[in-house]
Order: sequence, then structure tokens, then C-alpha cells
Amino acid sequence: MAITGTRRVDPASPRTANLAAVLRALRAGPLSRTQLAARCGIAKSAVPGLLTELAGRGLVRPAGILPGNGRPSRLVELHGEDAYALALGIEADRLSALVTDLSGRVLAERAETVDVAALGLQRGMDELADLAHRVLPGPPVGVAISVPGLVDSAAAVLRLAPALRWRDAEIAGLMAARLNLPADAIAVDNDANLGALAETAAGAGDLFYLGGGTAVGGGLVSGGAILRGARGFAGEVGHIAVDPSGERCSCGRTGCLETKANLAAVLRAAAPPGDPLHDPALGVEGRVAQLKHRVRQGDQRAATAVHDLGVALGIALSTVVDVLDPDVVVLGGYFAELADWLVEPIRVELAVRPLGHARVVPSRLGLGAPLRGAAHLAAERLFANPTLVEEASV
Amino acid sequence: MAITGTRRVDPASPRTANLAAVLRALRAGPLSRTQLAARCGIAKSAVPGLLTELAGRGLVRPAGILPGNGRPSRLVELHGEDAYALALGIEADRLSALVTDLSGRVLAERAETVDVAALGLQRGMDELADLAHRVLPGPPVGVAISVPGLVDSAAAVLRLAPALRWRDAEIAGLMAARLNLPADAIAVDNDANLGALAETAAGAGDLFYLGGGTAVGGGLVSGGAILRGARGFAGEVGHIAVDPSGERCSCGRTGCLETKANLAAVLRAAAPPGDPLHDPALGVEGRVAQLKHRVRQGDQRAATAVHDLGVALGIALSTVVDVLDPDVVVLGGYFAELADWLVEPIRVELAVRPLGHARVVPSRLGLGAPLRGAAHLAAERLFANPTLVEEASV
Repeated sequence: MAITGTRRVDPASPRTANLAAVLRALRAGPLSRTQLAARCGIAKSAVPGLLTELAGRGLVRPAGILPGNGRPSRLVELHGEDAYALALGIEADRLSALVTDLSGRVLAERAETVDVAALGLQRGMDELADLAHRVLPGPPVGVAISVPGLVDSAAAVLRLAPALRWRDAEIAGLMAARLNLPADAIAVDNDANLGALAETAAGAGDLFYLGGGTAVGGGLVSGGAILRGARGFAGEVGHIAVDPSGERCSCGRTGCLETKANLAAVLRAAAPPGDPLHDPALGVEGRVAQLKHRVRQGDQRAATAVHDLGVALGIALSTVVDVLDPDVVVLGGYFAELADWLVEPIRVELAVRPLGHARVVPSRLGLGAPLRGAAHLAAERLFANPTLVEEASV
Repeated sequence: MAITGTRRVDPASPRTANLAAVLRALRAGPLSRTQLAARCGIAKSAVPGLLTELAGRGLVRPAGILPGNGRPSRLVELHGEDAYALALGIEADRLSALVTDLSGRVLAERAETVDVAALGLQRGMDELADLAHRVLPGPPVGVAISVPGLVDSAAAVLRLAPALRWRDAEIAGLMAARLNLPADAIAVDNDANLGALAETAAGAGDLFYLGGGTAVGGGLVSGGAILRGARGFAGEVGHIAVDPSGERCSCGRTGCLETKANLAAVLRAAAPPGDPLHDPALGVEGRVAQLKHRVRQGDQRAATAVHDLGVALGIALSTVVDVLDPDVVVLGGYFAELADWLVEPIRVELAVRPLGHARVVPSRLGLGAPLRGAAHLAAERLFANPTLVEEASV
């Protein structure tokens, strides 16, 4: 199987749409030809031809027999173990890469701790491309990059990432040149949007995903789709006021959620300056693990810091729940790691609202959720247009 | 044309779906048969039969000839001047009714000033049904009721309306009994959701509608659909904190938007107790007109009250814009009347955000927006299932 450059079929053609419908239907599990025709709303007589073409492209394969009353039905399932979806992650102190096959199975994963802001945009993209080359078994069908900032998703431009000190960075174009792929093969999205997408793919309903890290971001999924807003900036909750007597925020106001809920602020509240808890060499995961350990051991200062974080999140989330009325609020990023102590104070704040109840749960994917969401998004490109991979020339 | 009770065609049948698609396509203006086939994605040969049936039901009619190169095309347009959509409005101090035809043209309108909370639920619904009977020329194809509170739209139940002191009120069932209609003919929705719907029908894009009255409510439209949230409560912005040193709110917190932006609070800020500005006999419209007149005349206290309202709205809207990233914020209800003095302070607050810009405009429909939205929603029922009206027996 090879990735086509020029022989691509028009993605808008009815045949491509039918190929895509069949492939998407199989994403949930094996189906018979009759089931496929019904699910996709296409004539049963058209199914065998579509399956032959998808099999020729290495994307589906036989999956045994479904026993029935009359003639037994032959099942078909997703194959695509050579169709690689590449997920790349940029965080303030970490670059990461993950490859899955078409079914979402992780084939390879790699990360490195590095001060990305110090590297700058060009060298940062060089490092990330190196990581990608090291994990990729072959050309990817699609790439998605998770970034900690405001993304204009239509233009695939990172408008502003304060943690990286990047502004108007044409991430997709820069990575396309380094991976020798067309720019439209590369999607760029906000880490919290991708966290929300990962949780939805994992089965949650209408949700608000609140991700914590060096900054705080939110992603919303309603009716199965990411709600991006007019410019792609929806979900920014870092500047909801949670403490009128709090710190001055970079936005000019006082007591924004971001000032209370970014990881460094919580660590400062949890331990005095010079404490090993602040050691950047530990990385985000290491520092959060340390904090968690201290709360478990009964360290009062650490426990108070985490409880206060829960209250601040609860105040901000009660506004979010009022405005969006989600089924469930998913705590992502480092909030997921601390969920045992955050959920209760958040629930207390939400309970003040007359009707604004929502379940509050930790992300099942923890710190890795945005990267898993990126892999899902990268694979979407092939699910939308299965002709991106060539038929084997037999 | 009569409204069918039992002879209704299965609304899920492919033929009904095609009838509905044709009727919806004509909502934007006259089309030829060829254009209809293309817009609706149906075979051109099927169009004449569908049009004959719709004409038989009194819903479409010929609309002249479209000149062209080859054969001139005959145009078809919406007719349905006997298909009545009934909109009913409940506010704290006012009941109203409006009837439109299928094209949205207003056929009759009537309102009365009354203390609805004092009437109570049963007598309030009696009064509203009386108004409906007085404006209706015949049985309606659909009814929608605008209410100032939290609506469980799936169950068509008004969960909570503090201004009316109603809780868990089965509005649709109560009105169905009084109008002798099936309960599923009656939709119930929040006034701000309906305001948002009216603005969208009038051509605005992804929007957040902020409606002011005895309470403050918001409605969101994204991708052409109202975003209702999991329980139908999305858009509640009244409890966003805007003034840490402000009044105690009914929710238990301090300085919520609702405490600053409800009409009574603004009037109290604008004039001392006993001032004729507070006279309830003026109704909402009368008091707002008085306030507007005073600001125009240079009354400093009134001008300051309205400016402060703008600042409070701006602080709350900057959170909303961060979370939702709408194209446009529409100021509805009494905010629309005061927009000349509100838009500027709101823009100043929004400009603090690094990227959260949104246009801010007054509602083109003013205080009447929710009722126009209700008429649109009432007509939707027929657009979804044109077989609700019987074919004439020729």
C-alpha cells in the first residue's frame, strides 16, 4: 500500500462517498454485506464492488461467518494495519509522537523533554519532525498536531501559544515541508479540543473537557462534533473570574481561573520556594506524581492547595455548565491525576446552581488524551477519503 | 384545508421526507423543478408528483416563468396562507399571541398586560388560551410557547421560571387540552433560545443572543441549530460574576450578572424610589421607552445606569465569547432598545481579550424576537411533515 499523491480520486464523487460510508460503518466493528447496505443507505448490489475496492487498498478484510437462519452471512472488518495515523504533540516542556493503525491500535510512541520556547519555532519543528521520522513505519495517511494555544483550524495556523511564545505559526506548512507531505494532510488543533475528541471516541456523550497543564483549556463536544466557534477559539475558560481578591492575570484582570489553576501556581501553593516539587527536570508528570504522593501522605499544605484548586475549578465550571449544559465534565491533563481530591469541591460548587447539574469524571486517558485525540483526527482523513491509499497493482 | 388527526402519513416514510425537503427548499424563495431536484437531491422525474401533492394540500402554487436559454422553466413558490403557525408568549407581566402563515407573514397579533405570577398556572394558561382563540383564524399546524425560564425541551416541561414562580409546569399538556390539539403539536422553549432562532431565521450566522427583561437569558445558535445542551438548559448566563462587591444574588453568590442587568435593577440605578420610571402600569416597553428618553435628554443618573449596565454585560459577554467564540453577539429584549449606549462599553470589555472578538449588534426584532422565533418554530412542525394538512377532496 502506498500513499497516493496524484492518483487520488475526487473526494466529492459519489463513489468515494460510498467507500467512505462503508469504511466509517466498519469503525464500530465487523458487519455483513446486508448490514453495511442498511447502515450506509446504499443498494445491497453495490456493496461487493465497494468492498473489493477497499480490500484492494488494504483497508478491509474477511472476518468469518455470521451464523443465521437462512444463508450464513460473511462478515467484513477493518484491516488497515499498514495505514498509519501520525499524532504529534507540542507542550511547553515536551514533544511527543504516536502512530496508530486504522483501528486506533498504538504501533509506536516516543517523547522527549525539552524547553520548546527556548528552541523557537523552526528548531522546535525540526525536533518534532525527527521524532516523527523515528516512530513512522512508513508514509502516514494523515497527521494531526496538538498544540497548547488558540488555533485557527480552517487555516491550520496556531494564532497564539503563550506557553511557547509562538504567534501566527504556520504549523501545518512547516511540518508538511519536513515530512514531505501535502499541507492538507496535516491538521492542527488545540490540545483541549483533541482531549475532548479522544474522550468522545472513547464513548462519552455531550461533554466539556477541561484540560490542565502549563495553561488551562477547554474543549466542547455536542452532538458528536467538536464545537469550535466562529474562528476555532471556543472553549477558552482560563479567564473566567474565580477570585476577586486574587492575582493579576496576564489579560489585565484579577483572579482569572488561569492564575489559580496552572500547574506552577498550584505547586507554589503546595510547597515553599526551593522545594524539590518545583524541579523542572521532573517534567509535568513527575511533579504531578510528587504532588499526588504528598497529598496521599497527609501533607496539609499540599492537600489545601489541591482543595483550593478544586474550588476554583468548581466556580469556573458552574459558569461553563450554565452556558453549555453538558452531560458530563471531563477533568483532563493534570486535573485527571488529582481527580480523587478535585471532584468533591467541584461538585459542591456546581450544586449551588438550581438545575445546572453535570457529572464530573476524570479523563480515562489522563495526560495522554490530547495525543490520542490527534491520532483519531489524523485517521479521520482516510475515513473521509479511502482513495488516499492506492490499490495494490496485482 | 383541514388539519388531520388520524389520516397523517408516517412522518418517517421516504415520501414524506421528500415532501418535507421540497417544502423546506422553497422556504428561501421560488424555484424551478430542476432547481428543486438539485437542491433536494431527488430525481427530477419525482418532483412533479411531489409538487402535485403539496399543491393539493394547499402548500405550494405556481409562481410564473423563469426565462432561460432553452425551454423556459416554470417556478413554484410556498403558498400555505391557510397554514397557521401559532406563537404564544408568557412574560412576568404580559401574555401575547401571534399567528403567521407558512411564509412567516403576520396574520394577527394580540397581547395583554397582566401579573402572570398572581394569576397562577391554571388561570394563566386559561388567559393565554383565550388570547389564542381570539387571534386564530382556524386550527393551527403547530404551536410554540415562549417562556421565561429553564425548559426541558424534550419533555416540553417548564422546569423553573422564577419570574412566574412556576416550577415543573407541563405547559404543553395544559395548552393542548385548552386548544384541543395533540400535545406533540405544541413546542415549549426558553425565550432567549427563541430570540436566537428568530435572529438566525432573519439571517445572522453563529450567534449568541442575550435577552434582557425581568431576568437575563442567553440562546446560542451554532451551525444553524440551537445548542440546547444535555437537558435543554444551555445559555444561562445570569450567574456569571461581574461585580465582586455587588449585591447578593438569589443563587447565594455575590454580584451575578442577573443582579445588575435585570430591568428593575437598572431602573433603580437610573431613578430614585417613587420616580414614575418605576410605574409597573407602564409595562416593560413603557418603562424602557422612558429610560431611553431620559438618556437622550442628558439625564446623568440615567446615562450612568445604562453605561454601568453595558460594563456588566461586557464582563459577562467576554466569558461567553471565550467559551463559545460566536460570530456575533445579538443584544435582545430591552438591551436592544438601549443598544446605542450599550454597544460601546461592551466592546471596550471584549477588547481586553487577546483574540476574543465578536461583533455586537442589537436585535433587529427588538422585544418581539422571542415571539417571532416561536412562530418560526411552530411552522417547523409542518415543514418537517407536510402531510399534517389534508389534501383537498376534489
